[in-house]
Amino acid sequence: MWLQKTINLRAKPRGFHLITEELTAQLTEIQHMQVGLVHIFIQHTSASLTLNENADPTVRTDMEAHFDQYVPERAPYYEHIDEGDDDMPAHIKASLLGSSVMIPITNGQLALGTWQGIYLGEHRDHGGSRRIVVTIQGE
Amino acid sequence: MWLQKTINLRAKPRGFHLITEELTAQLTEIQHMQVGLVHIFIQHTSASLTLNENADPTVRTDMEAHFDQYVPERAPYYEHIDEGDDDMPAHIKASLLGSSVMIPITNGQLALGTWQGIYLGEHRDHGGSRRIVVTIQGE
Amino acid sequence: MWLQKTINLRAKPRGFHLITEELTAQLTEIQHMQVGLVHIFIQHTSASLTLNENADPTVRTDMEAHFDQYVPERAPYYEHIDEGDDDMPAHIKASLLGSSVMIPITNGQLALGTWQGIYLGEHRDHGGSRRIVVTIQGE
Repeated sequence: MWLQKTINLRAKPRGFHLITEELTAQLTEIQHMQVGLVHIFIQHTSASLTLNENADPTVRTDMEAHFDQYVPERAPYYEHIDEGDDDMPAHIKASLLGSSVMIPITNGQLALGTWQGIYLGEHRDHGGSRRIVVTIQGE
Repeated sequence: MWLQKTINLRAKPRGFHLITEELTAQLTEIQHMQVGLVHIFIQHTSASLTLNENADPTVRTDMEAHFDQYVPERAPYYEHIDEGDDDMPAHIKASLLGSSVMIPITNGQLALGTWQGIYLGEHRDHGGSRRIVVTIQGE
Repeated sequence: MWLQKTINLRAKPRGFHLITEELTAQLTEIQHMQVGLVHIFIQHTSASLTLNENADPTVRTDMEAHFDQYVPERAPYYEHIDEGDDDMPAHIKASLLGSSVMIPITNGQLALGTWQGIYLGEHRDHGGSRRIVVTIQGE
């Protein structure tokens, strides 16, 4: 059984955001599957999807501090600079973190670990709404 | 055809570990599939899965040296510090490297390249056993 | 429905290369699928696949400059040095960026965002032809 839907995430400020609930609220069909896989794909090149700790908000702010340190704005070697200081770092972060996550379905639920949540990495200062394509397969 | 199983990896010291054989020994069902995909997913946020060179052990130790250099302990900007100096770097490494790998099945085998192996990145000093959910689909 | 094929990419110089067209020209079967997933997997440990901006070539050269800066050649801690100065950095870049991408199929097309393209990261000076295994599932 295949299911595919597009989800528009609400616009978020630059940084990492826990979006597990915003997504799963729109994926209630998973409840009826015993086994399967959910592919969550972001159709942008300056935002990313990753899995990380779902409890302490300072993990998200520390992630942002770290990636800002090691993927700096205004690096002397950037030539792609016309779209703002935040643009080229956003592209690099998107490739470092990835454009999709794939999560198993087990007995009607996402088989996330106890501490795992889905993060949106919003790497632009004003990224706006972000479009996600979710493709679910299972039985 | 769907198959899903949970595998508990033996506890390993901090660093990168080649786990291809530990995993495939428990995935003998692949032998009967002509084509398919194996999704290998770790249910933790301070360990990772990646593919890399399966021959020279210094690739693994050099990977550890590199990630320790560029994702340092005790960075001045960390606020998530209550669980130990190794904790926040472990979360960052987990997102940089990823929580899952997906590998094709071809003629009853994982279609890895000659030099490819599956790495566990154990990013905690004492991470303990790690739980993996393997989801296989094929025919 | 399953489809799997091996594609040999033409040899490319070190750096990031947009390969969307080189790949999709050999994946015309996608046109007949309403919904599905394409898994694109590289069978090497010194080259990578990622998604990023498909328009401005300086995004690719800036990516190369960035990864060369933060995954340097001749780092003092490398022990895996017998295969050339470009070898160990290539392994690290491969794990940072990843060995595969998975892209949804929607109405006979890859559901890439407007600005998304498929990048090959060629991390060796003389990597030669690279072998890709594409596994498609859909209906």
